[in-house]
Amino acid sequence: MSAAVLAGASSLMTEQPSNELRSNELPSRRVSQQRLVGRLMEMARIGATVSGGVDRAALSAEDAAAQALMAQWGASLGLRATRDAAGNFFLRWEAGAGAPLVSGSHLDSQPTGGRYDGVFGVIAALEAVQAMQETGLAPRRPVEIVAWMNEEGSRFAPGMMGAAVYGGARALADILPVRDQAGISVEAALASTAAALPGIATRPLGGTPYAYVEAHIEQGPELERAHCPIGIVSGIQGKHTFRVTVRGEAAHAGTSTRAERRDALLAATAMVQALARVLHDEADVTKFTVGRFDVTPSAPSVVASQVIFSVDLRHPDSQELRRLSALVAPACEAAAGPCEVEVSRLSAADSLAFPAAMRARLRAAADRLGLAHRDLLSAAGHDARYLHPICPSAMLFVPSRDGVTHNEAEFTEPADLYAGACVLADVLAELAMSTGQP
Amino acid sequence: MSAAVLAGASSLMTEQPSNELRSNELPSRRVSQQRLVGRLMEMARIGATVSGGVDRAALSAEDAAAQALMAQWGASLGLRATRDAAGNFFLRWEAGAGAPLVSGSHLDSQPTGGRYDGVFGVIAALEAVQAMQETGLAPRRPVEIVAWMNEEGSRFAPGMMGAAVYGGARALADILPVRDQAGISVEAALASTAAALPGIATRPLGGTPYAYVEAHIEQGPELERAHCPIGIVSGIQGKHTFRVTVRGEAAHAGTSTRAERRDALLAATAMVQALARVLHDEADVTKFTVGRFDVTPSAPSVVASQVIFSVDLRHPDSQELRRLSALVAPACEAAAGPCEVEVSRLSAADSLAFPAAMRARLRAAADRLGLAHRDLLSAAGHDARYLHPICPSAMLFVPSRDGVTHNEAEFTEPADLYAGACVLADVLAELAMSTGQP
Repeated sequence: MSAAVLAGASSLMTEQPSNELRSNELPSRRVSQQRLVGRLMEMARIGATVSGGVDRAALSAEDAAAQALMAQWGASLGLRATRDAAGNFFLRWEAGAGAPLVSGSHLDSQPTGGRYDGVFGVIAALEAVQAMQETGLAPRRPVEIVAWMNEEGSRFAPGMMGAAVYGGARALADILPVRDQAGISVEAALASTAAALPGIATRPLGGTPYAYVEAHIEQGPELERAHCPIGIVSGIQGKHTFRVTVRGEAAHAGTSTRAERRDALLAATAMVQALARVLHDEADVTKFTVGRFDVTPSAPSVVASQVIFSVDLRHPDSQELRRLSALVAPACEAAAGPCEVEVSRLSAADSLAFPAAMRARLRAAADRLGLAHRDLLSAAGHDARYLHPICPSAMLFVPSRDGVTHNEAEFTEPADLYAGACVLADVLAELAMSTGQP
Repeated sequence: MSAAVLAGASSLMTEQPSNELRSNELPSRRVSQQRLVGRLMEMARIGATVSGGVDRAALSAEDAAAQALMAQWGASLGLRATRDAAGNFFLRWEAGAGAPLVSGSHLDSQPTGGRYDGVFGVIAALEAVQAMQETGLAPRRPVEIVAWMNEEGSRFAPGMMGAAVYGGARALADILPVRDQAGISVEAALASTAAALPGIATRPLGGTPYAYVEAHIEQGPELERAHCPIGIVSGIQGKHTFRVTVRGEAAHAGTSTRAERRDALLAATAMVQALARVLHDEADVTKFTVGRFDVTPSAPSVVASQVIFSVDLRHPDSQELRRLSALVAPACEAAAGPCEVEVSRLSAADSLAFPAAMRARLRAAADRLGLAHRDLLSAAGHDARYLHPICPSAMLFVPSRDGVTHNEAEFTEPADLYAGACVLADVLAELAMSTGQP
């Protein structure tokens, strides 16, 4: 055994105690359910829909208002708000030295989204920081709360845009020209957000966190069915996304014959049906979704000249996902009839597994709090996907009623939100005080 | 033979000469191709698209601007502009007495429409009136140029709204609450148009014209293929339209299983394909079109909760049309899967035949001018459909290059536009001078 290895081992041994906080140092004791839920409900007023949900598109005025509210809450705790060139928003607790411990999620929502998806992870991180401060902890490293830009991908496709740029998986130059349905580019929307909040300083893009922990609602029914408040996320299901552009020719609905027509809508609907057939699996593991289907010119008496539709394809087995992914373009081409079709793959993320050590920390924290937990795979994509390659990352889930998310009816019991924030606070405190590897 | 019948016969005999203008009274000699095409091109600047077409939605600012231009041209000819409560726009040549002779079409266009559809019939009527004035004709009855509100039906469904209300087929109260995709009602859009043009007086709704003649581009290739400048429209193909509402449930694309999903988009695409199958006819006579397909919430990673799509179904045989129409709802219901579907029939117009006497007038006028003509059925619907039940009505067509319409590439040769306006002018002059039945 070399001296270097011995030194390493010794250093690990001496650090061990610093990872374990004394019970009176555990910030979960200071986590406030009332404050946590109160902030969530206050945030839900920004972009509130009549049906009780939230419509807070990435880089919209509502998104900026949500950041302003976070900045205001952060200021009262001495946290400094900054934003990077990709529109990621940070609240930094300046402490200790070295790489920051980062925790958060996103503030944007689906067009008819709920009150918890994304925002819970951001506000729970804020709650954790406040609880750590009230416990009197002096972190060994800076702690940053983050709201990643455009996780949802409904205004600008694909999603997880800000996290992907931060983590280096995508270049900033790639996302800036992406446009929404109104023709507004990410670049222009970033400028609007910056203009709406001139008080928030710019920070350099990217970085290498010490570790990253993200709390999120489960986007499925598993925890609720198991009566289990805490999910330890083993990994994230792989996801490939596509944009399919079908080009036909506009024609009069009353005069053009079937033989003359190049009906983009008829071809596109045939493609969607063909994809459903070719991607069908008896076991019902594959997830295939066409969520957008935009018709041009979209008039009842005009044969459609163009349809652009989205394909979202997921499978926990990366190899099977790649096999299914390769079927998409041929299936569309075979159903194109007299139209032209162009299939563009927008993203291709394999399935991933979070480090065992990070998962063990979450599990231990839940055990210490007497909270039931279970391991589960995230079928949904999360920003943590893009942090995983650059730093030790982990995710914890809390239940979502009936597994309903991306829906205005989304709901999580206050007690479960509180449980999740407690586990997050204790794990963040451990990581903030740790001197060795996460 | 009774005295009354004898009197009628005698009156017909004495009127006969008044129907035949002397050759130096034929206004076609004064029709100007340059003026006609110049006005068409000036009008095409209102709502011009970058691809050379026109986007002039019903009751839009562009539609109002088009009316303003018509009012300005009319004023220089002593014509008075008025608008009725259904948004139909009139230019009246006050002359003679009794029921007015009406001619026109519409100024609204499809979102990516052309420069001729509708507007040709309005500007050709103006050209005819100007030519009649320059010929020194003193009409025995008022002559009205009309632009019917919302013929296209792409902003507010269904189309031919203004003509249907004028003709009594629909009640004004039925159309006022109809909303466009932005949620704006016909009532509000009518108010905006009225506010944009305060100088245009209101006139009573409805009326019974002496006769109605509409010039229009053919929306098919028949005249061009036959090298024939004039189409004598025998009638209009029947048309039934539907709105199909498919209701499912929003869900997360990554987590909800196929078994759990109620995917409105998957169901709606299955319905469109099922309709294409069940309405398929080998002879290719049936016209089946789904031109609109609106998805909610329309996000790539959200299972669609709702799709609303349009069905436009036409067939020249009214009985066959009714048979096919009855298949629409059952086909949609059979393909609904776990979703709910509601099929609403928005309109159900049978095929119609224009009066032989009116068609004979058009034929005679074309013969006198040495213009080749042929009879054809209008596969497309036109405002004349709703004038036909209330007064003797007729339509003439001019060719459209490659049969392309409802398309920015729409084009008619200036010589053909001129030929159509000449026939229209002579027939309108005859009808304006006639003392008996049209």
